[in-house]
Amino acid sequence: MSLDGRYDPDNVFAKVIRGEAPAAKVYEDHDSLAFMDLFPQSRGHVLVVSKGSQARNLLEIEPERLQHLVLSVQRVARAVRAALKPDGVAVMQFNGAAAGQTVFHLHFHVIPRYADQPLGGHGHGRMADPAELQALARAIAAEIT
Amino acid sequence: MSLDGRYDPDNVFAKVIRGEAPAAKVYEDHDSLAFMDLFPQSRGHVLVVSKGSQARNLLEIEPERLQHLVLSVQRVARAVRAALKPDGVAVMQFNGAAAGQTVFHLHFHVIPRYADQPLGGHGHGRMADPAELQALARAIAAEIT
Repeated sequence: MSLDGRYDPDNVFAKVIRGEAPAAKVYEDHDSLAFMDLFPQSRGHVLVVSKGSQARNLLEIEPERLQHLVLSVQRVARAVRAALKPDGVAVMQFNGAAAGQTVFHLHFHVIPRYADQPLGGHGHGRMADPAELQALARAIAAEIT
Repeated sequence: MSLDGRYDPDNVFAKVIRGEAPAAKVYEDHDSLAFMDLFPQSRGHVLVVSKGSQARNLLEIEPERLQHLVLSVQRVARAVRAALKPDGVAVMQFNGAAAGQTVFHLHFHVIPRYADQPLGGHGHGRMADPAELQALARAIAAEIT
């Protein structure tokens, strides 16, 4: 198998889901959670995860759960656009370390793109200011429909 | 609105869907089509599009159609992995020119990643050999489940 080891129930996203690690939450429902990336590649970078699944990646997740999750990705992408008015929005989802995955709990990146700004490197960004992330999370959450 | 202009019914993916432009097809059902990217960022780069929607991007597509499309993305990602044994698989979806979108018909990229190979630039690759794409398409199609 590989795509890099077994599911670790103590990965950081699992801790966020259980409330054991802090996060600036944008959206939550019965099976999905969206929160600000602590190492944003651009201003307003949000992560969207499944709450109930222990899938490491897109290949493993139960199809019904994936169908629910992708609606949350769409909802968040629309809200990011409404709140922050970026010029574009990139959605990325990495499977396996060779693809750039660093946390092995399935997640979608919703990354606002601004015409004049190159994208920060994935996993190489600087940690964001928590207060600023909370403010961004509130602004995006206000646009969720 | 922007995210770059109105839907153009003569965009190249619409032509592929109508059979007016050639493509090395990997998978097709009533509302989705997967085919090899002519300018692959890595060996086995597949595009997955909705057939019935005129959505330019993820923000616009009808939720039910998106739910169907994402299952086709999963199906193709699994088949790419089974056929080509890459070390990872990246799924990318760009909304707006500022995010890297070049064809304004919603599409998902399924991009195999190989540990020793950097990713070719999106939209800057060399055109692939059509016979090689057909062979890759057949190999991936044989693993669709």
